[in-house]
Amino acid sequence: MDSALGRIENLAHHLEINDTAAPITTASVGHIAALPVLDKDKVARLKLMLLAHPSDEVMETRRQIMEVMKEPLFTPQLYATIPEFREITLQRVKRLASSNILKLDELMTKFRKFVMFQDSLVYCDMSMAVKSSVQWGLFGGSVACLGTERHRSYFTAIDTAEMLGCFALTELGHGSNVKGVETTATYDEATKEFVIHTPQDTAQKIWIGNAAQHGTHATVFANLYVRGASHGLHPFLVAIRDPATGKTLKGITAADCGPKMGLDGVDNGRLWFDNVRVPGENLLNKFGDVDARGNYTTPIANPNVRFNAMLEALIGGRVTVSSMAMNASKMGLEIAIKYALQRRQFGAPKEELLIDYLSHQRRLFPLVAATYAYGISVNYVAGRFANRDERDARDVFLLACGFKATATWHRARTLQICREACGGMGFAASNKIGVLRNDADVDLTYEGDNTVLMQAVAKALLVEFKSYFTGSKRITGMLSYTYAKGHIGIFLRNKNFYVKRLHTEAHLLDAEMLLDAFIYREFKLLRMVVKSLRSKVKNEKMTGAKAWNQSLDLVQQLATAYVERVTIERFLDEIQKSDDGVKPILNLMCILFALTKIEDDMGWFLSNKYFAPVKAQAINSAINKICGMMREHALPLVEAFDIPAHLMTAPIANDYIAHYSNPKNY
Amino acid sequence: MDSALGRIENLAHHLEINDTAAPITTASVGHIAALPVLDKDKVARLKLMLLAHPSDEVMETRRQIMEVMKEPLFTPQLYATIPEFREITLQRVKRLASSNILKLDELMTKFRKFVMFQDSLVYCDMSMAVKSSVQWGLFGGSVACLGTERHRSYFTAIDTAEMLGCFALTELGHGSNVKGVETTATYDEATKEFVIHTPQDTAQKIWIGNAAQHGTHATVFANLYVRGASHGLHPFLVAIRDPATGKTLKGITAADCGPKMGLDGVDNGRLWFDNVRVPGENLLNKFGDVDARGNYTTPIANPNVRFNAMLEALIGGRVTVSSMAMNASKMGLEIAIKYALQRRQFGAPKEELLIDYLSHQRRLFPLVAATYAYGISVNYVAGRFANRDERDARDVFLLACGFKATATWHRARTLQICREACGGMGFAASNKIGVLRNDADVDLTYEGDNTVLMQAVAKALLVEFKSYFTGSKRITGMLSYTYAKGHIGIFLRNKNFYVKRLHTEAHLLDAEMLLDAFIYREFKLLRMVVKSLRSKVKNEKMTGAKAWNQSLDLVQQLATAYVERVTIERFLDEIQKSDDGVKPILNLMCILFALTKIEDDMGWFLSNKYFAPVKAQAINSAINKICGMMREHALPLVEAFDIPAHLMTAPIANDYIAHYSNPKNY
Ligand SMILES: Cc1cc2nc3c(=O)[nH]c(=O)nc-3n(C[C@H](O)[C@H](O)[C@H](O)COP(=O)(O)OP(=O)(O)OC[C@H]3O[C@@H](n4cnc5c(N)ncnc54)[C@H](O)[C@@H]3O)c2cc1C
Ligand SMILES: Cc1cc2nc3c(=O)[nH]c(=O)nc-3n(C[C@H](O)[C@H](O)[C@H](O)COP(=O)(O)OP(=O)(O)OC[C@H]3O[C@@H](n4cnc5c(N)ncnc54)[C@H](O)[C@@H]3O)c2cc1C
Repeated sequence: MDSALGRIENLAHHLEINDTAAPITTASVGHIAALPVLDKDKVARLKLMLLAHPSDEVMETRRQIMEVMKEPLFTPQLYATIPEFREITLQRVKRLASSNILKLDELMTKFRKFVMFQDSLVYCDMSMAVKSSVQWGLFGGSVACLGTERHRSYFTAIDTAEMLGCFALTELGHGSNVKGVETTATYDEATKEFVIHTPQDTAQKIWIGNAAQHGTHATVFANLYVRGASHGLHPFLVAIRDPATGKTLKGITAADCGPKMGLDGVDNGRLWFDNVRVPGENLLNKFGDVDARGNYTTPIANPNVRFNAMLEALIGGRVTVSSMAMNASKMGLEIAIKYALQRRQFGAPKEELLIDYLSHQRRLFPLVAATYAYGISVNYVAGRFANRDERDARDVFLLACGFKATATWHRARTLQICREACGGMGFAASNKIGVLRNDADVDLTYEGDNTVLMQAVAKALLVEFKSYFTGSKRITGMLSYTYAKGHIGIFLRNKNFYVKRLHTEAHLLDAEMLLDAFIYREFKLLRMVVKSLRSKVKNEKMTGAKAWNQSLDLVQQLATAYVERVTIERFLDEIQKSDDGVKPILNLMCILFALTKIEDDMGWFLSNKYFAPVKAQAINSAINKICGMMREHALPLVEAFDIPAHLMTAPIANDYIAHYSNPKNY
Repeated sequence: MDSALGRIENLAHHLEINDTAAPITTASVGHIAALPVLDKDKVARLKLMLLAHPSDEVMETRRQIMEVMKEPLFTPQLYATIPEFREITLQRVKRLASSNILKLDELMTKFRKFVMFQDSLVYCDMSMAVKSSVQWGLFGGSVACLGTERHRSYFTAIDTAEMLGCFALTELGHGSNVKGVETTATYDEATKEFVIHTPQDTAQKIWIGNAAQHGTHATVFANLYVRGASHGLHPFLVAIRDPATGKTLKGITAADCGPKMGLDGVDNGRLWFDNVRVPGENLLNKFGDVDARGNYTTPIANPNVRFNAMLEALIGGRVTVSSMAMNASKMGLEIAIKYALQRRQFGAPKEELLIDYLSHQRRLFPLVAATYAYGISVNYVAGRFANRDERDARDVFLLACGFKATATWHRARTLQICREACGGMGFAASNKIGVLRNDADVDLTYEGDNTVLMQAVAKALLVEFKSYFTGSKRITGMLSYTYAKGHIGIFLRNKNFYVKRLHTEAHLLDAEMLLDAFIYREFKLLRMVVKSLRSKVKNEKMTGAKAWNQSLDLVQQLATAYVERVTIERFLDEIQKSDDGVKPILNLMCILFALTKIEDDMGWFLSNKYFAPVKAQAINSAINKICGMMREHALPLVEAFDIPAHLMTAPIANDYIAHYSNPKNY
């Protein structure tokens, strides 16, 4: 590690002269003019943009799923007990199955449709959305993406929910570090079966959706042993319950994860396997198999690469979770803003609308802008995933990690702030925001713990950084843009005393200037991480792993810097492609997003002398000014989220006084 | 407003020369030496400090209440339905009543005992804690603090919970702006009764604890009319349900607030009054009365001052909520740290403990330090309240506002971070953190919405600022310390180029230097608010109210600056008084608290040129270093929270592998 890092750092010093990549031109979005009213036509354009410019088929999927959710089965049941709620959720998922809207094989061929199906469910109920994603995404996805032709026969039973499945990877002892799971699958040459076994209690599968009650099958990840040799983790399809009786099968012990802080409609459970035998063909054998002669075969010899390939094949789940998180944010914001537009408190003669308080604007509007910004990026990642080929699998994987963490943290913050912004009303379950926050909170943890995902992003940036200098890789990866532009433009500009202090409005509202700041930060942080690792290894004699663990503050900052830079690039790109009518409002939000992210990290920008104090102060005023400008457009901006009226059931998003005037309502 | 502000600003310019107050000496805590082990004796001292050095009687209260909570009635019932949970909560509160531990009149005479009673309940269940605080704090408190001798006869029935009460202030139309409530109480001279009436649906009382099901009585706030003249809000004791049948009485309509995002053991409800007659003596008449001849009488002629006096009399509830929030934070942190000390993930040959990751330390340790810091301050506020006299009622009121907002926001952040730091386990209801977070979330809103409370703090600071310059008030109020020290020392020091850049360890870890930074920020923000108001009124021709609403970003910052400055002062004061054995660890935490708060707001300090970039960077490293030093002391530091083992039921705070090895457990 030591010498490689040293090499990187030395190279970094030669940066300005070494760079030969052609600079990429940024779209300059110009300055802010008076904003035209967002009429119906413009809102319609924003809607399509936020839905990622869907094809007719994807739109039709959306229409259908929204239609199904009009049925009485889907009305909120806030008083349901845990067992009742689980039953209702099961019935809802079965109804989704019977609607025939989605087919499992479309998960691979029509990913956009799959995401639309999943994220639409969020507007109705999170438990249903998660149980559905366990069935079609995690369980179905593992059969479809890790299995081969011989497993296609299961697709129909999965689509009809006749087979209800689990995805059993996490164990009591190992969550984030999945490579450490201990369950074993030993090949029995005599019977051509695999014997699935839980060697000790830390190897119990835990948190498995559908495992406590409803699951009939599970994809179980276990360490494959063939003739005494270990081949690492592989997925096995295991029957766990008799569909007729609901009883667990021989050798299977299931336990309940019990009540949770949310998502109580999902029956998460634990599983132990006592030498459970499954037929040889139940190995989901895309990445590894045992042939007729009992030999282990694999298309990918390196076990680490093989395991990564398996995880990358499942990355669609992570993208879907990001998109679901975006919709949860949209729901919270639309409710909070619609309430702020009718709720008055304090002031005479007529009390003020909440939305007219600067503090309220500053609480909500940057979140609206960020929801547009991340929404565009998450759509981009979904698109990259849908159209991926092998060459960019790694890039897509890392985009998916970075945006999953970012979208879900944004979701958590947004729902919390929205709940507080609605005062006591935000605490009512019927007003949706609070319950959504409780239910969705797990998205910070599952499909990859956010802190751990951000480390993966940073690690990949370092690898790319290195390969850039060693010339071992073309510059089209995660960093290409940063590099092409970064070295030539930014470092020089940073040294310009005049620009550092410049704070005219035109300058502050210039998207190019803002993007430069993000590129600069990412690049500088990359160098800081390298330097920190190097000094810890060299001067403090730490191991590479220890040096990494002691640099995690910088590592997290670096990953954030990367995600935010990509977000602004994507936003600018989307603006360039968009209709002139909506360009001004999109510009405004892109700039608000960039300015508030800079403000959040102003200590960094100032202590790294990228801005002078006078500029920092001007940025603060610019944010207030933009918030004031957004005030008139707040309603159409959230209406463009396009949440159907029949799912916008929160009383405070409607005429709440009329609603609460009836003592029967709550 | 304009001219007053102008005056203030002009005066502010003459600051340095005008100041004559003697500088107050700060305790310098010196530099950090190697820290001694926190043995049993030292932990015992920390425990007493965190419990605010309780008297024997208060300790005995604690012992008794903890003992009661060992009974089976108090074991967690995580599967309870909403109706069941409400019933369990009712039974628990009745059991608290029958324990005879607390008497209502002690709310006024032994406030420390009351707080200890209330905040201990948090460790068991938040719904019970809140229902108890409604009974003894809000309802009992209103009878005790707003009533007079003639209402003492109710005390016994309240203590035995024979009378179960509501505190009915908030209405559908008015929450934060309580002065706007619309319920009327019209004096009927003929019968000497008051007629309580809900004139329209916006005047329905809403969110009232105990109102949906269990309450037999309510303190109802209504606008008093005597002979056609309005006298503003007054509290009336109103019977609302027949205790025998549980039916609402004639003229009363009750409705249920329904399921919530937490706290479902409390039956929050809504109330309408249709010309309900109550006897004359049911006016809680401490601050206003109707005499035998039908004349309105009051000890406080000014209706605004009168209403404020009423609210100030009830401020104990706000202090209690702060103390409850501190205990919720303690619970979350103790669980998260105990888990981090046994959970291993990643790394070879042996996996690393979570607590050894720098990122984990940075997530949790500053929160431990802040919990000590705010804990000390909240104890201080409780002490000031317990010993208040009329002269400092206003100061205590504002301290209570500022620290309620700060303690509850800290609680929200702490529990969220703790929940994430425990990964999937943090999502289990049995592991407490998540449910506590859901239940406690309302503390951000009730007993005064945090955003609104912070405005009240800032407003008071401006008033004090003004009176300081006009000489109309002695300088012993909220700002005294800042002023005495602020002008002479800080402004001069700020101009010192050398100190700005100084970043030796000894300097960075010097408590005096850190306190100076907080004093400087508060003082500068005060001036900035004044300047902003003035310029908006004068140059932009806004009304005073509008200028205020458009300065709310600065206003919130100012209030935060005030609270944090007071927190550090209190912490330093506590350290000075404490035993030498625990001084080093308390120093370390005080400095960590100060440094992380500075880091959070580094953009401000740098853009106001209080620090130079080089110093900012050094602060960042110092935080990492201190986190490393705290590692060895993390366990004793959370054990000093002194949460009894029988309430530390979270499996992950104990041997979680043993627990989950049994499939019956969850
Ligand atoms: C409701 C729910 C549903 C779930 N559904 C499923 C399912 O259907 N199937 C399935 O297989 N799993 C499921 N999971 C499990 C989920 O995927 C895991 O919880 C997740 O992977 C995190 O693992 P963990 O809980 O063991 O946390 P850990 O890995 O133990 O992490 C705990 C904490 O330590 C931190 N940490 C860990 N490693 C590091 C490091 N190297 N550096 C810094 N910090 C670190 C993390 O940030 C985290 O805060 C579910 C979980 C929940 C709560
Ligand atoms: C579970 C629960 C229990 C409760 N128990 C009781 C009880 O027993 N008795 C009782 O009387 N009440 C009770 N309440 C009511 C509680 O006191 C109110 O909810 C609280 O006072 C806030 O009022 P509001 O909900 O009307 O919010 P609002 O005042 O409408 O505030 C809504 C939002 O607007 C913002 N806002 C308001 N004014 C301003 C301003 N001037 N500037 C900037 N921002 C502003 C606030 O920050 C907030 O985010 C309870 C509430 C809950 C949720």
